[in-house]
Amino acid sequence: MSTSPPPLSHHGTLADLLPSHFTAQVTTWLAEDAPSFDYGGFVVGSEPRSAQLLCKSAGVLAGVPFFDEVFRQLDCAVEWHYDEGTYLDPKLAGGKIKVATVKGPTRKLLLGERVALNTLARCSGVATRSQKMLQLVRSAGYTGILAGTRKTTPGFRLVEKYGMLVGGIDGHRHDLSSMIMLKDNHIWSKGSITNAVKAARAVGGFALKIEVEVQSEAEADEAIEAGADVVMLDNFDGEGLKIAARNLKERWRTRGRADVLLESSGGLTEANVKEYINNGESDLFASSQPQSSLFLSLGMRGDDPIQSLQ
Amino acid sequence: MSTSPPPLSHHGTLADLLPSHFTAQVTTWLAEDAPSFDYGGFVVGSEPRSAQLLCKSAGVLAGVPFFDEVFRQLDCAVEWHYDEGTYLDPKLAGGKIKVATVKGPTRKLLLGERVALNTLARCSGVATRSQKMLQLVRSAGYTGILAGTRKTTPGFRLVEKYGMLVGGIDGHRHDLSSMIMLKDNHIWSKGSITNAVKAARAVGGFALKIEVEVQSEAEADEAIEAGADVVMLDNFDGEGLKIAARNLKERWRTRGRADVLLESSGGLTEANVKEYINNGESDLFASSQPQSSLFLSLGMRGDDPIQSLQ
Amino acid sequence: MSTSPPPLSHHGTLADLLPSHFTAQVTTWLAEDAPSFDYGGFVVGSEPRSAQLLCKSAGVLAGVPFFDEVFRQLDCAVEWHYDEGTYLDPKLAGGKIKVATVKGPTRKLLLGERVALNTLARCSGVATRSQKMLQLVRSAGYTGILAGTRKTTPGFRLVEKYGMLVGGIDGHRHDLSSMIMLKDNHIWSKGSITNAVKAARAVGGFALKIEVEVQSEAEADEAIEAGADVVMLDNFDGEGLKIAARNLKERWRTRGRADVLLESSGGLTEANVKEYINNGESDLFASSQPQSSLFLSLGMRGDDPIQSLQ
Amino acid sequence: MSTSPPPLSHHGTLADLLPSHFTAQVTTWLAEDAPSFDYGGFVVGSEPRSAQLLCKSAGVLAGVPFFDEVFRQLDCAVEWHYDEGTYLDPKLAGGKIKVATVKGPTRKLLLGERVALNTLARCSGVATRSQKMLQLVRSAGYTGILAGTRKTTPGFRLVEKYGMLVGGIDGHRHDLSSMIMLKDNHIWSKGSITNAVKAARAVGGFALKIEVEVQSEAEADEAIEAGADVVMLDNFDGEGLKIAARNLKERWRTRGRADVLLESSGGLTEANVKEYINNGESDLFASSQPQSSLFLSLGMRGDDPIQSLQ
Amino acid sequence: MSTSPPPLSHHGTLADLLPSHFTAQVTTWLAEDAPSFDYGGFVVGSEPRSAQLLCKSAGVLAGVPFFDEVFRQLDCAVEWHYDEGTYLDPKLAGGKIKVATVKGPTRKLLLGERVALNTLARCSGVATRSQKMLQLVRSAGYTGILAGTRKTTPGFRLVEKYGMLVGGIDGHRHDLSSMIMLKDNHIWSKGSITNAVKAARAVGGFALKIEVEVQSEAEADEAIEAGADVVMLDNFDGEGLKIAARNLKERWRTRGRADVLLESSGGLTEANVKEYINNGESDLFASSQPQSSLFLSLGMRGDDPIQSLQ
Amino acid sequence: MSTSPPPLSHHGTLADLLPSHFTAQVTTWLAEDAPSFDYGGFVVGSEPRSAQLLCKSAGVLAGVPFFDEVFRQLDCAVEWHYDEGTYLDPKLAGGKIKVATVKGPTRKLLLGERVALNTLARCSGVATRSQKMLQLVRSAGYTGILAGTRKTTPGFRLVEKYGMLVGGIDGHRHDLSSMIMLKDNHIWSKGSITNAVKAARAVGGFALKIEVEVQSEAEADEAIEAGADVVMLDNFDGEGLKIAARNLKERWRTRGRADVLLESSGGLTEANVKEYINNGESDLFASSQPQSSLFLSLGMRGDDPIQSLQ
Repeated sequence: MSTSPPPLSHHGTLADLLPSHFTAQVTTWLAEDAPSFDYGGFVVGSEPRSAQLLCKSAGVLAGVPFFDEVFRQLDCAVEWHYDEGTYLDPKLAGGKIKVATVKGPTRKLLLGERVALNTLARCSGVATRSQKMLQLVRSAGYTGILAGTRKTTPGFRLVEKYGMLVGGIDGHRHDLSSMIMLKDNHIWSKGSITNAVKAARAVGGFALKIEVEVQSEAEADEAIEAGADVVMLDNFDGEGLKIAARNLKERWRTRGRADVLLESSGGLTEANVKEYINNGESDLFASSQPQSSLFLSLGMRGDDPIQSLQ
Repeated sequence: MSTSPPPLSHHGTLADLLPSHFTAQVTTWLAEDAPSFDYGGFVVGSEPRSAQLLCKSAGVLAGVPFFDEVFRQLDCAVEWHYDEGTYLDPKLAGGKIKVATVKGPTRKLLLGERVALNTLARCSGVATRSQKMLQLVRSAGYTGILAGTRKTTPGFRLVEKYGMLVGGIDGHRHDLSSMIMLKDNHIWSKGSITNAVKAARAVGGFALKIEVEVQSEAEADEAIEAGADVVMLDNFDGEGLKIAARNLKERWRTRGRADVLLESSGGLTEANVKEYINNGESDLFASSQPQSSLFLSLGMRGDDPIQSLQ
Repeated sequence: MSTSPPPLSHHGTLADLLPSHFTAQVTTWLAEDAPSFDYGGFVVGSEPRSAQLLCKSAGVLAGVPFFDEVFRQLDCAVEWHYDEGTYLDPKLAGGKIKVATVKGPTRKLLLGERVALNTLARCSGVATRSQKMLQLVRSAGYTGILAGTRKTTPGFRLVEKYGMLVGGIDGHRHDLSSMIMLKDNHIWSKGSITNAVKAARAVGGFALKIEVEVQSEAEADEAIEAGADVVMLDNFDGEGLKIAARNLKERWRTRGRADVLLESSGGLTEANVKEYINNGESDLFASSQPQSSLFLSLGMRGDDPIQSLQ
Repeated sequence: MSTSPPPLSHHGTLADLLPSHFTAQVTTWLAEDAPSFDYGGFVVGSEPRSAQLLCKSAGVLAGVPFFDEVFRQLDCAVEWHYDEGTYLDPKLAGGKIKVATVKGPTRKLLLGERVALNTLARCSGVATRSQKMLQLVRSAGYTGILAGTRKTTPGFRLVEKYGMLVGGIDGHRHDLSSMIMLKDNHIWSKGSITNAVKAARAVGGFALKIEVEVQSEAEADEAIEAGADVVMLDNFDGEGLKIAARNLKERWRTRGRADVLLESSGGLTEANVKEYINNGESDLFASSQPQSSLFLSLGMRGDDPIQSLQ
Repeated sequence: MSTSPPPLSHHGTLADLLPSHFTAQVTTWLAEDAPSFDYGGFVVGSEPRSAQLLCKSAGVLAGVPFFDEVFRQLDCAVEWHYDEGTYLDPKLAGGKIKVATVKGPTRKLLLGERVALNTLARCSGVATRSQKMLQLVRSAGYTGILAGTRKTTPGFRLVEKYGMLVGGIDGHRHDLSSMIMLKDNHIWSKGSITNAVKAARAVGGFALKIEVEVQSEAEADEAIEAGADVVMLDNFDGEGLKIAARNLKERWRTRGRADVLLESSGGLTEANVKEYINNGESDLFASSQPQSSLFLSLGMRGDDPIQSLQ
Repeated sequence: MSTSPPPLSHHGTLADLLPSHFTAQVTTWLAEDAPSFDYGGFVVGSEPRSAQLLCKSAGVLAGVPFFDEVFRQLDCAVEWHYDEGTYLDPKLAGGKIKVATVKGPTRKLLLGERVALNTLARCSGVATRSQKMLQLVRSAGYTGILAGTRKTTPGFRLVEKYGMLVGGIDGHRHDLSSMIMLKDNHIWSKGSITNAVKAARAVGGFALKIEVEVQSEAEADEAIEAGADVVMLDNFDGEGLKIAARNLKERWRTRGRADVLLESSGGLTEANVKEYINNGESDLFASSQPQSSLFLSLGMRGDDPIQSLQ
């Protein structure tokens, strides 16, 4: 029986995950928000100012390196008062939490404001819902893997998968090039599960995992025999799934394949956690990552009170 | 008193809004999902197949031209069975609605599947929530403009603003280059509302509208006098807002500025519609566009039953 | 009656108008001038040197931030001896004016030389001709708006519109996404001016202005009634235009639409200013921005005399 | 003594000069003019229409393949009624000449209109001024080469150099990578003309020509001896230039270098042609390509009369 | 004991592996070879012609879809006379083999010639050397996996990995995002192999394989225990490797981890195959993919004989 | 009789050849090797470390500025212990030479490792083989030019041509836009060599060289007469080539064209040097640049011994 993994902060800093070229994506976001002239920038000018990032709704802070990069490209500096991954609850803090301070030319602060907030809000939203779902399945006694899906916003996957990791869930396969998943169509095309797995291995090589979606215990056996690393049990009812999973695990452990993972097919939501968790023998659930945004704002310090800009 | 505008389909086809280069964005989405090899594509091959787009949850269909473009770039053809903007309710249709048929090489159908579904699901989600919010404010008796914001997913604004339009709400300003919005910082920088508006007009010219955020009726007067086209009444309480709005409208109508729009500051949600609508004299509300996804899937027709792929 | 606006320098620094990503355009300019090897750069080497920017023909200095960016990308520093917007007259200064000093590795100075000069020369040329045209219409008694057009060099609009602003004229709409202009074809397509304006408003929302081109006073009335913000009076003769403009202004002021602008249709040139200015009631003229280049050169300080490089 | 070369149309079609990737540049031009939504396109719709390209001012038609590409990317087809390189004189044709017919969806015609016209107008302007300058120098008895410079609009050089070729003048070196030009700084850096030429040849190899700017006949001798292919005689007065040129040509012909070209330094304008042409022994003049635009418009055929859109 | 896998052609068509956006890379290759004008294209013109692709040296044909794409972008059509993967031996065919016929406008054939040949020649070279190395290890009795490395030409990996697959060897991990490899530095950073593997799993999730480089049998045990999928035995001598491999395999098979792969550390070359193959218990060798080019040319059919162009 | 040119280091620093935008290419290389997350980077973290670049096989060090740029983009600094162009022989140094030291965050060192090594290894391989071939032809008594070809890896030409220059050979024409080469197809298309050369000159202008491939002495005469700068003698046998070359050189020297270069057609390899060098009158040979890689590695300094990473 596996036990809950420690939080990611025990392992390292998630910003170390980002490839060097993610900055180019940030550049396109900034271009999207100001395709030609920044008229307001002319009005407000370039005097140095300081702005406070305020959190107004509860959740997990995520997306720090993206926020940093937005302002780095605009010659502003960010100082964080909370670590990425912290659960912030503004109610406990009198309504608003000062999360970070951003300093730079006034017009650059405003030029980056919306892009930076939109990124941080969405990433934090994904992390918050991921963490909540994880807590729900853990409360229900599940000790296996909870993973996301590829149901992400086109062009924004890096941020959303990053948010899942901050929230503590498994990112599942990142894209079509990083794990091979064989479903009904692949199997029909090749004539059998065995043929499909062999074909996948022929091009994917030893370095990629192969997952196969199966409809029966016999199909699962065929997939594992052919070399599948993960098997998704599709269209099983609750009790049938439990029996099949137990049989497969026992049978293949003795054949030297204790490593094979069994995934339960999709549909997990916050509302149906309990029912799903009855599938006690599964290693792995996938859940479309929750779309949600935290409410955040960037308020510049005026002559005296903190003004919030939306 | 304004009356509800007719649905967009009375005016034309929204696909006619898209600039020619939006196709380049679709290309980057496809690249995101298959950065190097498409291993599954090798397994499934390129035989021609047909797939059904199924709708599994109720909502407004939106994002048709983006979905089309994904598959056009993959040499597949899409035939739609419902028009964009249609409210689909699968429950009334026995659980699933066949929305479109996509034909092309098997591997290309699968290569586009997730990108196309993610786009359509998010765009339809935005349209659905937009329409719902519009219905709520109309039910509450509001006849003015309901608009979105720039709180969109970075890099994905075109799709989300498009979804708002399908849902029947106003897109508000698209970006920093298409309307000038002056807030506290701009006014502080220039020393007065008048100076800030003059500076904005000096660079924005006659072609752009200028909106000014004000804290009092006197400030509103100054803004309009200086040439503002829209005034946002910030931090007014319910009754105060009503009085200020009525005063401003009457005063400026007689001075030849019946065109000035009064926007109520943010915070409108599905939960607080009734309270807000009491602000009877406002012309304009903005509401962060709702993030939501419809459940859709692309199922290929197998030997005989329709198989759904997620 | 409106009065001439103060020069832009009263309002702020035009460089504050530029979006963060304009630097990417500068990169493509540099790539255009040295697609593969910089052979001359090898010969001249990377010793630090200083170069003088010399102005050889009279005009308004414009394009400073673009010039700066060219050299910033090449690790050179620019010090300006005159502000952007200054009218330089080399004849008064003995033939040449030292406008700026550029310091950096010799080969980088030469690598940026032509790109930087071409940009500055064209931008200054546009500013100079814009200022001249403005002076002509002001001399003729015109107090309204003088604006540019979209007749700019493809890919170079940001620089040319910037030059217009330095020269003191209105940039007019920047692109098809920032103001809606309805002409004969739009009206035919929708069946009436009213329908066309309603359709435009349905997608453009409250944030964008709508301009309609009309052939008669009745059409102008219809356009304004439907919600147009600007009306272009097309194909009116001199006296007819004057009468129509006066009628429209008076009629709509009393109906609360004193904000409506009347544009006179194109064709304004330096040669025909007087004739056009007779159209005393117009608010707005557009003139294709003048294409012109100032003569500038970058001369490095040699052993003793200043050498000019072209 | 050389004689005037035949017109380019004797040799082939200039469109054959364009590399395959020039189409990407056209895409960025279209994106510049419609960064987000094409609101007018929604109003006008996508019904098929036909538009006439009208020429309103006299000049040489140039830029045909760029115009074609703009509309190809917009699913429109262009039929030309005149060949590229034709001198069009609308006055002889009653004021306007129908140059081409463009057919396609109405909104696509309008989406491409300004980009296509701006490109064609500038390219034709360059061709017209190039041809005029060529005629002036030929009339003055000059039989050598008349060339352009690199003083082109950043990012738009391909179009402008193309226009020079249509106008019949030599494009000179296209960029820093296609011929090596050594001036005072290069020579100072290397200590002598000989060293500079050797260094240039060491990296440029046999395939690139080398031009050296010299101040005296002795320097010219040194440059040619070292292997220069072209020598620019700088700062010579009229008579001195004539003598130096004659001496150099005679001396080096006998030494087997009849191929060396002598370029006269810049400054040639339409106004000073006669004075320059006295430099009878020069092989080559460069003249900043003239910036000029023809007046063109795209008029769609309405219910009956031809309407012109600007 | 594993047996040699069947050739890839038993499984499918390798062109089905390519993502849709690989075409953009081909565009940059064409731009590299003709940055501005295609002067030769003007000379040769656009008459339709036919060219023969000739093979002049023996090897495995690979790179067909890249070659096709080069010419597709140039409006030319390719007909292949041999399948990808075929071993061509021109000596057996009298010196040259006609591999394909390309038809299109003459200048387009020449514009694509070098780019297409360079791609095909390198890809075929990689395939040829891969196949040869595979034959060598098979001849020496090795039945395990022979894989490539990431030692590929920057920017050209897709083609080179494709060539390896055509040649029959395993592509190994494609990039840093598709399998996690932990070496000395990773282990030092985390303090132990166990910690490093846990940290990798925390972010890589279940979907990615983890390989660990170890220096001893004990380290291998620790890695496998921690969850490693592949273990690289580094710095073992021949006999020591054999013993360690056998011990590990037996021990972990009984613990349900028969799936663990043992990789022998690098250095395999054509010259040292026999010595390496003594490491009989290894599952996997990596070999830097061989760089090599086949000699190919594209010859257009002239008036009568086939002319070869290089 | 020409004599061997001095090494390039007598002339300057080759890094001065690189255009400013080559850095963008480096960015795409880094993106290729880490398309999404850098999982290993998370494990290893960002503590500052130092790594040694080790050379393990003999050859000419080349590619220094590309290596530098890879690490510059990753916030690492490189210190070189040997100059570019040095011949390194590790055997003389006990097996490995410390070529450079790289310092920076650990994960950034590993993120750049493979990209930097692949670039340096290939560039050094090209330089090494180029130098070797040059030494072979010099040993055989050849004093003319030895040049490369355009048979380079698509997208990687800048690095490979750079390597040829480091190795001391002539880069030949860089691309289709920098010298015009006329072969059989061009001549057929124009009807004669004379026509083809005239057409090429008409568009290429005076600034570009023209090379013509000929089959006989008479054709060579026609080409030179028409203005060719280089003539390639194709399909001549050894003795015939010698006679033709001598005749042409003598004849044209007296006609003032001593500058014309004669190129011998291709096929030069390390194996056939002696035979080719008999063609004593040729000025120029081209040889496909040798593809080869040096073995290099980047080893980080661990607690005490230097560990090598491959």
